[in-house]
Amino acid sequence: MKPIPGRSETCNAMGDILNRIGDKWSVMIVGYLKRKTMRFNELRQAIGGISQRMLTLTLRNLERDGLVTRTVFPEIPPRVEYQLTDLGRTLQEPLDALWNWADQHQGEVQRARRDYDALHEGADEQLPPERRYAGAAR
Amino acid sequence: MKPIPGRSETCNAMGDILNRIGDKWSVMIVGYLKRKTMRFNELRQAIGGISQRMLTLTLRNLERDGLVTRTVFPEIPPRVEYQLTDLGRTLQEPLDALWNWADQHQGEVQRARRDYDALHEGADEQLPPERRYAGAAR
Repeated sequence: MKPIPGRSETCNAMGDILNRIGDKWSVMIVGYLKRKTMRFNELRQAIGGISQRMLTLTLRNLERDGLVTRTVFPEIPPRVEYQLTDLGRTLQEPLDALWNWADQHQGEVQRARRDYDALHEGADEQLPPERRYAGAAR
Repeated sequence: MKPIPGRSETCNAMGDILNRIGDKWSVMIVGYLKRKTMRFNELRQAIGGISQRMLTLTLRNLERDGLVTRTVFPEIPPRVEYQLTDLGRTLQEPLDALWNWADQHQGEVQRARRDYDALHEGADEQLPPERRYAGAAR
């Protein structure tokens, strides 16, 4: 199937899944867990810049999607470990492809943004969206 | 480079790019534009379920990232066409891989969600995130 969606249930479901797995935190978590099982705080330190709340939420969504398992060991304090499921492992290849694209082309994207911003500085941010470009043949 | 990011500028930039290109609307727009140049309303009708404001915003971000060009033809009413840049075309392959993953595995993800929700119904949504799982060895 190609990305030629209509308004169907299927396409809504796929859009939802794409939103989830394309999320940067999900990409990073899957990237770490493909190497080894990790504990919550270990993941948090490895990723850096993610809040406890966001990490909890992202892990829970990954667990709910069947991509990650969460195992609690009844120790004091409880030890909680996360690992990829078989389904989660199938995600590695497409996520690596996306990551490699971002890595390879980030310079071009940043240059494009600088050029765009220089050209549009202070332009039409305050207009309603449908008016922002009207008549401005750039 | 592998997804083993730290707190660096580079990784922030890549996270930002991943968030953008993994967005479901961006995936759909790139999917349509790889087949042909399209006008705003044509895209809107093809995608379905996207608001004018969100389509405007997503197209502008794609333009700013150097992935899409926007051409205004000074007619009455003005004709505005969008097409992929060369950089945008390089995105097709990784986005197709992600789309195909979602297509192929959506059934499994949906089953996992149903199972998860059945198991956790009404459980611990009201607790602060750091308490939600405490001690619950499932």
